[in-house]
Amino acid sequence: MKRTARKNGKVIRFAYTGIRVRNLDRSLRFYKNVIGMRELLRGRMKAGGVFVQLRSPKSKQLLELNYYPAKAKYYETFDSGSELDHLAFWTEDVDKRFRELTSKGAKKAISPFSEDGYRLAFIKDPDGIWIELIGLDRRTKRK
Amino acid sequence: MKRTARKNGKVIRFAYTGIRVRNLDRSLRFYKNVIGMRELLRGRMKAGGVFVQLRSPKSKQLLELNYYPAKAKYYETFDSGSELDHLAFWTEDVDKRFRELTSKGAKKAISPFSEDGYRLAFIKDPDGIWIELIGLDRRTKRK
Repeated sequence: MKRTARKNGKVIRFAYTGIRVRNLDRSLRFYKNVIGMRELLRGRMKAGGVFVQLRSPKSKQLLELNYYPAKAKYYETFDSGSELDHLAFWTEDVDKRFRELTSKGAKKAISPFSEDGYRLAFIKDPDGIWIELIGLDRRTKRK
Repeated sequence: MKRTARKNGKVIRFAYTGIRVRNLDRSLRFYKNVIGMRELLRGRMKAGGVFVQLRSPKSKQLLELNYYPAKAKYYETFDSGSELDHLAFWTEDVDKRFRELTSKGAKKAISPFSEDGYRLAFIKDPDGIWIELIGLDRRTKRK
């Protein structure tokens, strides 16, 4: 038992992804009203800033929105970099969701296409982060 | 039943976070040997590039490493931007893990500190992505 406890104590467990947002209300509208995530908790950082944790229905994967006002210690001019390649969201009907989400204001990145039995499409969040929609390719399933 | 099926079909479920890596072997060494994640699957993108999905023991949260060679359609010169604020990893003893990980070559970002009952520290991955180590503040617990 002691060995298990010690072993568990050494575990480093991936808990959530924090993305930086330039406008918290705008991003909350996007991730809640367009993507359908739900707010779990929100708090303030001592160094300045607000964090809001979100979760999709039926997922334990957590997304945190991090907003830093200009006076916060870790504020920086926003630079759309390369390091976050994409956030992936699973859904049953990629084509339908793509039409629905873009009609709700999500920017298109790549229209739906098929690859290796999956249906894929990409949209952009309000800060330009690529959102992947992925699901099984229904045409493959029907064969 | 039909209503439930239709409702589930509309669910968009956050599935994983994909980060862009400049050197796949170097990043795999970091996330596997230093952070302790395990490889779940790997594949190739038709547009060029390799993806590797990783998971921590005791976590369903998925991290995907995306590597694009210079000839790939979505290759770009790497720019350490602002959009990915941090990847958070939960661990029991933040101070110990911080010492351990930095001795294994992880770059220091912020030394351990306490805030609101939590113990926090930040290191950097090989591409400069901030990794948060978070755990309960043991000194608070002892009170």
